[in-house]
Amino acid sequence: MPPIVAAIRESRRALARLLTRIENNAAAAELAALYSFGGNAHLIGVTGAPGTGKSSLVNSMAKAYRAESKTVGILAVDPSSPFSGGAVLGDRIRMRDLHGDSGVFIRSMATRGYPGGIARTTIDMARALDAAGFDIVLIETAGAGQSEVEIASIAQTTIVVEAPGLGDDVQAIKAGILEIADILVVNKADRPGAESTVRALRAMLDFGRRAERVMHHGELMSIAAVPSGGEDSAWQTPIVQTIATNGTGVAELLTKIAEHRAYLQASGTQRLRERASLSAEIAERLRDLLLMRLIEQVGAAHLQAIVERVVARQIDPSSAAAQLLAESLQERRP
Amino acid sequence: MPPIVAAIRESRRALARLLTRIENNAAAAELAALYSFGGNAHLIGVTGAPGTGKSSLVNSMAKAYRAESKTVGILAVDPSSPFSGGAVLGDRIRMRDLHGDSGVFIRSMATRGYPGGIARTTIDMARALDAAGFDIVLIETAGAGQSEVEIASIAQTTIVVEAPGLGDDVQAIKAGILEIADILVVNKADRPGAESTVRALRAMLDFGRRAERVMHHGELMSIAAVPSGGEDSAWQTPIVQTIATNGTGVAELLTKIAEHRAYLQASGTQRLRERASLSAEIAERLRDLLLMRLIEQVGAAHLQAIVERVVARQIDPSSAAAQLLAESLQERRP
Repeated sequence: MPPIVAAIRESRRALARLLTRIENNAAAAELAALYSFGGNAHLIGVTGAPGTGKSSLVNSMAKAYRAESKTVGILAVDPSSPFSGGAVLGDRIRMRDLHGDSGVFIRSMATRGYPGGIARTTIDMARALDAAGFDIVLIETAGAGQSEVEIASIAQTTIVVEAPGLGDDVQAIKAGILEIADILVVNKADRPGAESTVRALRAMLDFGRRAERVMHHGELMSIAAVPSGGEDSAWQTPIVQTIATNGTGVAELLTKIAEHRAYLQASGTQRLRERASLSAEIAERLRDLLLMRLIEQVGAAHLQAIVERVVARQIDPSSAAAQLLAESLQERRP
Repeated sequence: MPPIVAAIRESRRALARLLTRIENNAAAAELAALYSFGGNAHLIGVTGAPGTGKSSLVNSMAKAYRAESKTVGILAVDPSSPFSGGAVLGDRIRMRDLHGDSGVFIRSMATRGYPGGIARTTIDMARALDAAGFDIVLIETAGAGQSEVEIASIAQTTIVVEAPGLGDDVQAIKAGILEIADILVVNKADRPGAESTVRALRAMLDFGRRAERVMHHGELMSIAAVPSGGEDSAWQTPIVQTIATNGTGVAELLTKIAEHRAYLQASGTQRLRERASLSAEIAERLRDLLLMRLIEQVGAAHLQAIVERVVARQIDPSSAAAQLLAESLQERRP
């Protein structure tokens, strides 16, 4: 076992330090070393708009997993999350009961300012928690934008949290977010309108808006052939009603999560999704390496000169790219 | 003048056919030929959540520009837009008064299913409308997600539309969307709560949430040095109240748009933004070309084998990418 894996399994402080290095995009060697020691945790994404109570839900889920003696790592990617200290006092007090428990590790993240990008950083952090031996890794995101969809793509089970009374149903249930849901939760189920929110969600599910999650990453198709169509046909996205503040429905939610995990493994869907997201990741990393290399080859000054020609409309962006590629190939010939 | 430019300036049918080829990602030669003939239109992005009445606003703006004898192209990137036929009857009737006017050209787009990606396709279409000679190109987007931010990055002036009574203010005004606004519009200003929406927006602006738009594209920094900090310091994002259905406030909005354009040109900001977004585009195109070339070099089967090793956790994604790069370099050596 590499020293870094031993260290983060033994010491929470070593784990925290590693996460900080990952944040600073300065942990490539450690990430390479620990990757083989992951794959055991169940990565669960919990996403939802502010006001849905998803942080309280994450809190309740963590407590329920602890009651089953499972260890829990939490990554809170949401500046308004109580885990990040950005919430009202009541919420923060509620979260505090997790903090004394050595079986729970909480890390909150800002949504910007990461040299490697927020999605990349979160994925690397989740891998570190996985390798550190946590049974469950909960990734809480704010549920708006491409980053959340990207982060969701590494979760094995993605939970989308809604709540009644957040205004127009059509607006609250954002396009794209529903499609990534493996399980839908209507939290604050004791509030007026909960039943109508459930009905609206069910109608949208029936309308066939749920698409295969792997299809979100169009680019990965170019590198790995992923069978499309019907990937998830055997899984019927359940809708679970919860009241996170008193734990109602959380046991049912954990049951659905376990069922989803069993489905993923039995159906081969997990392998399929992993292959798709890893292919996309390798392609993305290659793109970056190749571009960096090309810039070295042709030189930043020359690149800048071509950009200026495009700005002056002497050449279009696509032809400029083709020209730079051709030049980089000539450079190599003796 | 290349034949394609002459054709799309003379014939709306030729323009429509070109846009279809752009949708199918099959117009590279035409786009290269017409690029030099653009740069005259004012590209205006109009983004906002469903329910803000942004389609009605686009309609009112188009009519107001027509009253100034300016020609207007409209790209509606929103499946729920009345321009796409996806709206209630009242809206559609309201839109119809633009249809008989040969100085207006309307094209609605789906939000998925474009081989080149929605943002790329929209940008290419806007370039075609620009080269076709329209004075104004209005790009309507739904205001949720990364695609909209990307599309907004080609607009010279981005208008973010809000409306009172869409639920929680904090939620309605999504993070990230406010930052791309050059002009904020509170539409439906005759509704209760309009003043409080204006106040909330002003408070958020004062709080300094407005960042330089070019900073959204982190990656472009690697290819073109863009001075950061204070790019927009001289422009104070105005908040305009409108009632799109009867035209109230639209004249003021057009004045603010003209002021913004004058500011962009006088301050040099336009050149700066163009350079930034074109650099990002060239980098993105190069990334794709380079990856395609690498896949040709190493072979899809070998690539697939490496992906399988990553799936089996024998090698991590970053090392896999580095290995593929090294192999592609060796291929080239005789």
